[in-house]
Amino acid sequence: MPFAPPSADKHDLEEGAAFTPKFDANGLITCVTQEAATGEILMLAYMNALALEKTLETGVVHYWSRSRNALWRKGDTSGQVQELVDMRVDCDQDALLLRVKAGGDGKACHTGRKSCFYRAVLPDGRLSEV
Amino acid sequence: MPFAPPSADKHDLEEGAAFTPKFDANGLITCVTQEAATGEILMLAYMNALALEKTLETGVVHYWSRSRNALWRKGDTSGQVQELVDMRVDCDQDALLLRVKAGGDGKACHTGRKSCFYRAVLPDGRLSEV
Repeated sequence: MPFAPPSADKHDLEEGAAFTPKFDANGLITCVTQEAATGEILMLAYMNALALEKTLETGVVHYWSRSRNALWRKGDTSGQVQELVDMRVDCDQDALLLRVKAGGDGKACHTGRKSCFYRAVLPDGRLSEV
Repeated sequence: MPFAPPSADKHDLEEGAAFTPKFDANGLITCVTQEAATGEILMLAYMNALALEKTLETGVVHYWSRSRNALWRKGDTSGQVQELVDMRVDCDQDALLLRVKAGGDGKACHTGRKSCFYRAVLPDGRLSEV
C-alpha cells in the first residue's frame, strides 16, 4: 500500500477521507499505543512507511526501531505481540493512535513492566514509581 | 527548575529517581495527553524545557508550538485549559504522558472535536470518522 503524500490543503488533511500520513524528516511517524480494553497507555514508538504498511496488512503491530534501525515486529523475541484493534490518525495526520490487544504476558515495556510510563514526575522534579 | 542532562547509564535512566528528560535535536520532548477521568487520548504535542518547567510549576499544561515557534499555554485563546492531574515519563525518558482535566468545553482539538484522533484508519487506507 503506497501512501499518498500529504495534501497542502488543510481542510483536506483534517476533514478528508484520504489517509496521507505525514512522515518526519527521518521518514517516521509517532505512534501512541493504548491497550484497547483498559485505555492504559503502553508505549510510544515510531513507524516508517514499511512498518505502517505491514501493520495495516497483517493486523499485527510493526514499528521501526530507531536504536536498531530495523523493522520491528513487536513481540518477535518477547512474545508480546500487539494485535491491532483500531488505528486512528490525528487532525494533521502526523501522529497515530494504536489501540491494541497485547499478547504474551502483556508487558509492553522492555523493563518487564506493562507500560513504559511507570514513573510519575513529581512537581519537585523527582520520579516516583506508580 | 533546570533539568539535569540524561545519564549515560541506562539503569539510572530507567530505574533512577532523577527526572532527566531527553529533548530531541530541536529541544523538544513528545507529550501524549490523556483525559484522566476517561482514559481518552486527546492530543499529541511537544514541550521544550520552558514549557515543561511552566507546566510543573503551575499545574497547568504548557506546550511548545512548532508551527508558531512559541510557548503555548493550552486554552489561552480557546478557554480549553488543561489542568495537570499527573505527569508520567517513559522508560528512556524521551516521552511524557500528561493526564489532565480538560477545562472549557473540553474540546482539545482545534477542529472543534474533543480529541484530535477522530478518524479511524481502515485496512484499505481510507479514513472513517469515529
